[in-house]
Amino acid sequence: MNTNLTPYALAIHGGAGTILPQHLTPELEIEYLNGLKNALLAGKTILENNGTAIDAVNAAIVWLEDCPLFNAGKGSVYTHEGGHEMDACIMDGATLASGAVTGVQGVRNPIRAAREVMLHSDHILLAGKGAEDFCKSRKVPFAPEGYFGTAFRMSQYREALMTDTIALDHSITKFNKPGFGEGNKFGTVGAVARDVFGNLAAGTSTGGMTNKKYGRVGDSPIVGAGTYANNDSCAVSCTGHGEVFITNAVAFDVHALMNYKGLSLEDAANEVIMKKLAKSDPESGGLIALGKEGQPVQVFNTAGMYRAWLGVDGSVNCRIYQ
Amino acid sequence: MNTNLTPYALAIHGGAGTILPQHLTPELEIEYLNGLKNALLAGKTILENNGTAIDAVNAAIVWLEDCPLFNAGKGSVYTHEGGHEMDACIMDGATLASGAVTGVQGVRNPIRAAREVMLHSDHILLAGKGAEDFCKSRKVPFAPEGYFGTAFRMSQYREALMTDTIALDHSITKFNKPGFGEGNKFGTVGAVARDVFGNLAAGTSTGGMTNKKYGRVGDSPIVGAGTYANNDSCAVSCTGHGEVFITNAVAFDVHALMNYKGLSLEDAANEVIMKKLAKSDPESGGLIALGKEGQPVQVFNTAGMYRAWLGVDGSVNCRIYQ
Repeated sequence: MNTNLTPYALAIHGGAGTILPQHLTPELEIEYLNGLKNALLAGKTILENNGTAIDAVNAAIVWLEDCPLFNAGKGSVYTHEGGHEMDACIMDGATLASGAVTGVQGVRNPIRAAREVMLHSDHILLAGKGAEDFCKSRKVPFAPEGYFGTAFRMSQYREALMTDTIALDHSITKFNKPGFGEGNKFGTVGAVARDVFGNLAAGTSTGGMTNKKYGRVGDSPIVGAGTYANNDSCAVSCTGHGEVFITNAVAFDVHALMNYKGLSLEDAANEVIMKKLAKSDPESGGLIALGKEGQPVQVFNTAGMYRAWLGVDGSVNCRIYQ
Repeated sequence: MNTNLTPYALAIHGGAGTILPQHLTPELEIEYLNGLKNALLAGKTILENNGTAIDAVNAAIVWLEDCPLFNAGKGSVYTHEGGHEMDACIMDGATLASGAVTGVQGVRNPIRAAREVMLHSDHILLAGKGAEDFCKSRKVPFAPEGYFGTAFRMSQYREALMTDTIALDHSITKFNKPGFGEGNKFGTVGAVARDVFGNLAAGTSTGGMTNKKYGRVGDSPIVGAGTYANNDSCAVSCTGHGEVFITNAVAFDVHALMNYKGLSLEDAANEVIMKKLAKSDPESGGLIALGKEGQPVQVFNTAGMYRAWLGVDGSVNCRIYQ
């Protein structure tokens, strides 16, 4: 490992989309940057005390889930029925163990639920009420439905409902116009970490799409699509148009391009996000990733991605735009 | 394309597992072989009349779902709650479009539901009641709960419940001992097809695991894990220990090994099933696959896999054991 680097690394994201300076007031921009910084520091504290990559990913995502600005946990968008159905996934690059939940309601921190599935279940992905029952059996904290909503999300929901009433179709773009400070099409949070033991981990959490119907499952809770970690190659957390990420098995493909074609992490991430995905959807999203060594990679084909990472000297870096 | 071949190709499977001659009476063996043959012929009829690969996959899987011998549609295993929660996925190798459902109850042919999602939704994967609502909106046929059960599945369920009561844990192996004629650990059906236009398609359908709890989602409905099709490389349908197939993104990995390392379909399938998966679980399952040309490939690390395929002369071949 390069001795100029801290012995650990961490990066997080808070979603990608058509985030442009004119969409954010200066005050809101500061709020977002502070949110990212605090989430990063929550993970850094774990790593600098020789904690595990899994613990750091968990801590950073719990912070982002608790922050109402991001579409995960508190601040999750409303479903068509006016509730909150959340997804999360976590994966340990050392063991390839993973856990995930989809469509859970009332679980305060879905990433904790995913971790419980990883640690205390023979399964990887649990859905809906069954997943909630599992969480209860493991004493994963729940919160009342009102905890998750915010006035801003309610306004998005009302607008989406009205649009839907008129349009009577379910196109993704229609419900997600920019201008709310979040490029809210791809609201997701995620983290990737490398600990002092050299182990990698990745996690992703999301409240899904505003006004989503029919129990839609995106890429976030799917190992190999939105989330993947393998000590042999990389840890990846994605954010974007979930269907495009599922079709292209984005997170696993970064790993495959590194392992089979010998690409660097940066080249592999660029190949997938900037070349392959552009064929389906030129503004489909992005990812953060970490390799066995070196700094985090951030690649996105959208106008912006909320993101933060530790510099080689352990410093905090937060960015929103390209 | 090799002119010795029919201009189309088709293969199906009915699950893999510890299927040994001593587990099947001669009468039951004939029933299984007849079931496979008829499903294959249902798909062949489509292909020889210049139908599409997607239609052939759909037709073969509908037949397997309707046959009570296989764990999909009618004949699906019982969940812990005594119901049937089914998963299915279909993918079009020409367009990379796909559709899938998980945890649906009462849908007579889950593969039809998956196809409706592919054709008439902006999404790929729909779960639970939301998926059922979508099916109703698309007039996908439903059947009463009693339609799906069989006396044999009920006996498996009762035994699993009793074991569970004693063991109070949720290990996968405990509920699935061999001896029921199905190596029932990995009850799944699937099909891969190449049509006269050179397009590939793949589909998979399953009733899941006997006594399954907590809304567990296996690999079958996950694009890139249990099902994948891409005209650039191959069409793949898997059957096995779902969690191992998700972790290894098996179906996509076959594609990646072909595209990035230049492996043949057969070598890629062997690399994944016989080498990689063996590290996690030496008897984890198998797959059927088709390339842009040539005959189907069948690879499994279990004692048996119910399977059938068209020979180069269009003949029907059915096998159970290695």
